[in-house]
Amino acid sequence: MRYDPRMSAGTKDPLGAQDPLGALYRPIAADLSKVEDEIARMTTSRSAPLQALLDHVGRFAGKRLRPALTLLAGRMCGGVRPAHHTVGAIVELIHTATLVHDDILDESRMRRRVETVNHGVGTETAVLLGDYLFATTFKEAAALEDRFSSRYLAEIVGIVCSGEILQVHHRHDLLMEEATYFRIIEAKTASLYAAALRCGAQCAGGDRATGEALASFGRQVGSAFQIRDDVLDLTGSEDAVGKSLGTDLEKAKFTLPLLRLRDRASATDRRSFDKILLSDDPEERRTILAMLEEYGAIESALKTASALVASARAELGRLPESPERALLAETATYMLSRNR
Amino acid sequence: MRYDPRMSAGTKDPLGAQDPLGALYRPIAADLSKVEDEIARMTTSRSAPLQALLDHVGRFAGKRLRPALTLLAGRMCGGVRPAHHTVGAIVELIHTATLVHDDILDESRMRRRVETVNHGVGTETAVLLGDYLFATTFKEAAALEDRFSSRYLAEIVGIVCSGEILQVHHRHDLLMEEATYFRIIEAKTASLYAAALRCGAQCAGGDRATGEALASFGRQVGSAFQIRDDVLDLTGSEDAVGKSLGTDLEKAKFTLPLLRLRDRASATDRRSFDKILLSDDPEERRTILAMLEEYGAIESALKTASALVASARAELGRLPESPERALLAETATYMLSRNR
Repeated sequence: MRYDPRMSAGTKDPLGAQDPLGALYRPIAADLSKVEDEIARMTTSRSAPLQALLDHVGRFAGKRLRPALTLLAGRMCGGVRPAHHTVGAIVELIHTATLVHDDILDESRMRRRVETVNHGVGTETAVLLGDYLFATTFKEAAALEDRFSSRYLAEIVGIVCSGEILQVHHRHDLLMEEATYFRIIEAKTASLYAAALRCGAQCAGGDRATGEALASFGRQVGSAFQIRDDVLDLTGSEDAVGKSLGTDLEKAKFTLPLLRLRDRASATDRRSFDKILLSDDPEERRTILAMLEEYGAIESALKTASALVASARAELGRLPESPERALLAETATYMLSRNR
Repeated sequence: MRYDPRMSAGTKDPLGAQDPLGALYRPIAADLSKVEDEIARMTTSRSAPLQALLDHVGRFAGKRLRPALTLLAGRMCGGVRPAHHTVGAIVELIHTATLVHDDILDESRMRRRVETVNHGVGTETAVLLGDYLFATTFKEAAALEDRFSSRYLAEIVGIVCSGEILQVHHRHDLLMEEATYFRIIEAKTASLYAAALRCGAQCAGGDRATGEALASFGRQVGSAFQIRDDVLDLTGSEDAVGKSLGTDLEKAKFTLPLLRLRDRASATDRRSFDKILLSDDPEERRTILAMLEEYGAIESALKTASALVASARAELGRLPESPERALLAETATYMLSRNR
């Protein structure tokens, strides 16, 4: 996965002029480039067919939010060291591996405007490539000098998977509780944000209380990120978001907006909601979108995301003031505005 | 995954009266039971849906060959310690995780007389469950006191996956070289045997030379095991072997017997061989079986397996004589006779 460093999130605003992340990341641009170097090193193989696949996956390169959090946590706790570039690359590749496997589960065809591995090369290869990427992260985590981070990162993938398994288990579960939704997104998404920050603090020699406060910040921000993602899956345009959308409805996954709609709908609407959720008709999507609007379900979900971001920012308030703390706070707010 | 300890390989000969492994394992039966305890501990989850899946996978419990090798290596190098039970459970679960994902690739329906996860519960769940099992092994490997084993085991999964990726890449490749076949099976199968022995030696405080000799033994025995497996896929009966067979032909995977046939066939037979390999007609399997017989291709592949076992046993000859060395030698020979 060789990225042109000029394309990395911090240096040239590949996210578009309106995206505030480019500016946010300017202070950590040099370190983000070193994270890219680590990602490139970890995704280099002597096997030509494997290298071709790794190069393909390199084109999914996203906003590098997680490594940015690792670097900011490092700066807050005593400074960025080489281990931070490695940890940042590890969390990014764990994320990438989950994307490759998620696209199989969702039967997605497009990811960041690039054909998914399952759609382009086949499910078999996508299974193995995801495994290989996970394995790479384990190898790299095992090689870290800091055993705390080594063990912490080794545990994260299991937590992410258990969240995904719970989600698959509750598909078509019309009675799923909201608490289950939050358990799912905390495990499958927020735990990796927490890890990015916790290990960033640890590798800089930060104290435990600071590390835990940053992890808690990450957990809430990560949950807000996922809620926004779930909203985009329902209301976004594939063109703007750059990936297959509508898969939650298609797979009858109960995300927060759908749960809010279910709990607010009149008895009649609830009956048609249940019916549509269990049907296979993609045309019914429009009916659900109208209902989401009518009952303010999207708005309600976004309010919850806002509350999580506010609480995450409050968590930061317990830490000493610094430019990095301000950047983390702004990153949290970004989670609410992003539209891809 | 809770096994009745009486069902574990060493204690009650669950392999049937004719199977020699039960007798072979008698001296390590108590330690194999402790490996089962470790497997049970690692596959216990507080999540009910996940536990149900882990219990299902527990029913795939096989011959426990790999943990047995870890224990025998430990005994040869100073004695079995608690770490050996953990390492034995880790290598067995890495193996289990690969089986869960292999069954997706092969679209298998049956594994050790039990419905596969992909066929019984679905591909999505099989992807995630395999990931979860891999993640469990990483977490456990990261927690080992012995950092050598911790890092060695973290690297193995990547090697196994790269072998599988190479195999998928060379499907339908009528010109695949035999050297590529050996690269594939060494990575996807033999490397885990080598790891079981190498880490078994290491955790007992064995010296490097002994560890490397045992790893080399394992690599050759593991390759012989895979050749035997590839022969069984062509000639075995599903009833005796207890799993879906014929998938190599179906998926146009060039295993050693097929390569030997290809290289021995007359020009006319070679043309029909090529045609059948690329066709989707399961009826053609019988033609291939007759050709394998006619050209002595199965026999030729088994001869290579025999040579590998002889060379593996010679490797053992460089180590001091002991009851464990004799057991390892017998295990090597078992690889040639097994019919499931």
